[in-house]
Amino acid sequence: MGKEVDVSTLESGGGARDYVDPAPAPLVDVDELGKWSLYRAVIAEFVATLLFLYITVLTVIGYKHQTDTNISGTDACGGVGILGIAWAFGGMIFILVYCTAGISGGHINPAVTFGLFLARKVSLVRAVLYMAAQCLGAICGVALVKGFQSGFYGRYGGGANEVSDGYSTGTGLAAEIIGTFVLVYTVFSATDPKRNARDSHVLAPLPIGFAVFMVHLATIPVTGTGINPARSLGAAVVYNNSKAWSDQWIFWVGPFIGAAIAALYHQIADLVVDILGRPWMRSSSTGV
Amino acid sequence: MGKEVDVSTLESGGGARDYVDPAPAPLVDVDELGKWSLYRAVIAEFVATLLFLYITVLTVIGYKHQTDTNISGTDACGGVGILGIAWAFGGMIFILVYCTAGISGGHINPAVTFGLFLARKVSLVRAVLYMAAQCLGAICGVALVKGFQSGFYGRYGGGANEVSDGYSTGTGLAAEIIGTFVLVYTVFSATDPKRNARDSHVLAPLPIGFAVFMVHLATIPVTGTGINPARSLGAAVVYNNSKAWSDQWIFWVGPFIGAAIAALYHQIADLVVDILGRPWMRSSSTGV
Amino acid sequence: MGKEVDVSTLESGGGARDYVDPAPAPLVDVDELGKWSLYRAVIAEFVATLLFLYITVLTVIGYKHQTDTNISGTDACGGVGILGIAWAFGGMIFILVYCTAGISGGHINPAVTFGLFLARKVSLVRAVLYMAAQCLGAICGVALVKGFQSGFYGRYGGGANEVSDGYSTGTGLAAEIIGTFVLVYTVFSATDPKRNARDSHVLAPLPIGFAVFMVHLATIPVTGTGINPARSLGAAVVYNNSKAWSDQWIFWVGPFIGAAIAALYHQIADLVVDILGRPWMRSSSTGV
Amino acid sequence: MGKEVDVSTLESGGGARDYVDPAPAPLVDVDELGKWSLYRAVIAEFVATLLFLYITVLTVIGYKHQTDTNISGTDACGGVGILGIAWAFGGMIFILVYCTAGISGGHINPAVTFGLFLARKVSLVRAVLYMAAQCLGAICGVALVKGFQSGFYGRYGGGANEVSDGYSTGTGLAAEIIGTFVLVYTVFSATDPKRNARDSHVLAPLPIGFAVFMVHLATIPVTGTGINPARSLGAAVVYNNSKAWSDQWIFWVGPFIGAAIAALYHQIADLVVDILGRPWMRSSSTGV
Repeated sequence: MGKEVDVSTLESGGGARDYVDPAPAPLVDVDELGKWSLYRAVIAEFVATLLFLYITVLTVIGYKHQTDTNISGTDACGGVGILGIAWAFGGMIFILVYCTAGISGGHINPAVTFGLFLARKVSLVRAVLYMAAQCLGAICGVALVKGFQSGFYGRYGGGANEVSDGYSTGTGLAAEIIGTFVLVYTVFSATDPKRNARDSHVLAPLPIGFAVFMVHLATIPVTGTGINPARSLGAAVVYNNSKAWSDQWIFWVGPFIGAAIAALYHQIADLVVDILGRPWMRSSSTGV
Repeated sequence: MGKEVDVSTLESGGGARDYVDPAPAPLVDVDELGKWSLYRAVIAEFVATLLFLYITVLTVIGYKHQTDTNISGTDACGGVGILGIAWAFGGMIFILVYCTAGISGGHINPAVTFGLFLARKVSLVRAVLYMAAQCLGAICGVALVKGFQSGFYGRYGGGANEVSDGYSTGTGLAAEIIGTFVLVYTVFSATDPKRNARDSHVLAPLPIGFAVFMVHLATIPVTGTGINPARSLGAAVVYNNSKAWSDQWIFWVGPFIGAAIAALYHQIADLVVDILGRPWMRSSSTGV
Repeated sequence: MGKEVDVSTLESGGGARDYVDPAPAPLVDVDELGKWSLYRAVIAEFVATLLFLYITVLTVIGYKHQTDTNISGTDACGGVGILGIAWAFGGMIFILVYCTAGISGGHINPAVTFGLFLARKVSLVRAVLYMAAQCLGAICGVALVKGFQSGFYGRYGGGANEVSDGYSTGTGLAAEIIGTFVLVYTVFSATDPKRNARDSHVLAPLPIGFAVFMVHLATIPVTGTGINPARSLGAAVVYNNSKAWSDQWIFWVGPFIGAAIAALYHQIADLVVDILGRPWMRSSSTGV
Repeated sequence: MGKEVDVSTLESGGGARDYVDPAPAPLVDVDELGKWSLYRAVIAEFVATLLFLYITVLTVIGYKHQTDTNISGTDACGGVGILGIAWAFGGMIFILVYCTAGISGGHINPAVTFGLFLARKVSLVRAVLYMAAQCLGAICGVALVKGFQSGFYGRYGGGANEVSDGYSTGTGLAAEIIGTFVLVYTVFSATDPKRNARDSHVLAPLPIGFAVFMVHLATIPVTGTGINPARSLGAAVVYNNSKAWSDQWIFWVGPFIGAAIAALYHQIADLVVDILGRPWMRSSSTGV
């Protein structure tokens, strides 16, 4: 790093912007449809969401099996724990965003795609194709788990999202809204062109994965944690249980509202900044 | 990285300084009050502290609910554990410092703001506005948890900080002082202009988050771990329990003393270095 | 980072490639056999695989000993848990890939070597020497554990991989195939010359280690998790149990099929990209 | 990063070395004794080792208190677990190496200092002063824990290292030798001038912290895990128990042998490389 250049750029920057905002993505980009890169990205989203659901639901089922005290040789502490389940969801998002970021942008979640579409980072066509690929991938991933171990799969709840006993529908919806806000807010922060201009694109997947990990720690007891409509749909389709279906709307409406609020929060700040001048300050920064 | 430049710069540096110390922040910066960037930063601190308390207190309440053996279907190992709670606090600080560092400096903690004010990294005006935003955000974050699940919230202690049975007030105060020292010492190390000049601003939030994680592992049994007066105040206001209020001073005095010692330790070292010459050496460095 | 250069390179890139694909490795490279660097790499693979098996199998044995309720003073929650075992496998791969990447490429796993051989990243000679060193290292690592604590070693299953009760051979084989796919897909993503051209080689070992961690969370209940034929062979040779031997083929065929699918997935994408033009797009990237 | 420069440098490098080995440190460096930077480094080692022992021993004592089933209100699963203890040791090393690397090199461990002395990275004078500071810091850190909660401290074993029941002295010594080898091997890999020349000094503390975490997962059941003579001495001095004293030699001889083997392994490889030519190859690297 040419550090003098870097530091001077950061410490001046009174009025001039030291980065380039990409142009907003068009709603429909006809050119895009003719490019292999779009289809490669859609395939990457499909495969990544499939792997995400396969590993995470397998972890959930294995945990419940190993702590099933009706089976001899198991005990209440024998599995990876809810902490391990939270790691499975967060860690898979970390590695899959890392692997697919250069190909599809690493969404793996219709709520993330929706938020980036609202912020005009992806076209409508791309957003629709991504969401379809994510939902299909999620269904296939859960189906693999059921296919290989159908007995355990049905007995242990199929990894489906439902509002837990003792919590109201409103509480579940709020948990999904705020949880998805945390995730999509982190995604916007990590992909901000201001940040990209000054760090080296290396660390973005790690905070995104941690955001997923954190939300699971907090809301597994409330809803099993959705914050990803494809994940919730995939488990509902394969598990096909009436409670999972009747709660399904919560896991679409909640994440989409959360993502929209995150996009709004991010955009309004930028809008005011653009109007009022100096884009961001750094003298009191903790140095990131 | 232009590595020849980098290495030669590091290995000379006998007398000349290879970095620029920013000028000390003024106590009152009138210009600052007219800038949108200040208000954007205050809003960012409010939102970040709100999210911090919402996710962490929800994790604490959910853990206590899932391990409540008075309720059928739960068991002692059923929650995320104290390890999961420590991850929630540390991990949230990691992602929130990452998200807000470019906007507000990523304090999310009045003790951090106090330490950086003592070191003249932020003005008095900014420090006061940040602390107000942090306290208000914390109250709102805990209120959200209570609002959505008031029954569980009250039954499981409200996430409030209190000195635990079997520990003296002095022990609790000492735990807060040393714990906050560890955190603010890490913040100073991560934001040192010498370090900033040579790494790429990427990794700072990770050690800061880990410092919070570590202190929680050690002091949850002693005080529930404050090291953040906004966190302690928010829980006390919403939980509104006499023990939480009578211990509240510990969670302000302790963190502020710890932050002051960290600022002193950092400043004295720099002062002596400036007087005696060569700022830092590297021949035996482990290469960081 | 020269950021203007970087950004402009990323945002143009319509037709020209901004990176250099290394030439495919020859099947047999006679020159290579005369170079010390090859033998140094083989020694590094041997030592790394030895350390990998020593630490991980010691963790497994220690966990089973501490939770053995037939022994007074132990309890079901007394060990590191299955979560700790998953960390041991993933964390060791993280540090060993970090330590050996510059010397041998950091394979430490015949399935990784096989995948990189299929992708023509290593020669046949190097692949065969690496696999031999990995298997020998694994046997020595497990033998060390047995040598130091032979009583505990035999009593607690020797760390050997076997398909667990209640799972079919096909389920075990599928778990190994998909698990190894996740690992080798991450290795290919991390070592992609397109990625190497734009990040700083720093983060690759972390997602590779996390991939191993994730697969262990999901498949320890199914097979004990192989996804590394050297690891499975080493434990089988030292434990020398008939079930471990009769299942051994699963832990070679599964990982090699998974690695081959990952190589195919990666290569086909690149082949089509080369034919159709524009190698990758970034406008919707999450910025990695 | 000027990437073309970087890549070409890495891919040529047939005979010429693309990095500069620092000159070996002299045994006694009289100049060094007159420099403030030496004393600042010694103070940093003292403070860091104090914080390391304070946080980790407090975590151990708190865990044992919370899982003490003789006390009502506690349960076997109520603490951070052995996994949490392993995180405390590894995580503290991560943040303390991060904080002190630019000042003292971030040793915090006499075995690390001994290994770097053998490799001629630090002078004899510096090594002796560091070790004294580390031991004194460790004693003070444990004394703080005892001072604040002397009742719990004595009841729960004082965090002292002893060979556990059921393991022989030879097994304990071997566990310390190999464990320290893993740590010091990682330190040498992270501080290799070849690596420093091409990454940005950012990630080194993370694998070093993980190495400590991994060794604790594996050897807490065997010896409580020393791999750091200052840590073992500090706990023995403050706890002052005959078993802790009679085993003390194991926690000095083992780590010093392990560090010496790591230094030897690293140096011999470099020696042969220097004699035979091409220093390292990269065509099959996983890209780190």
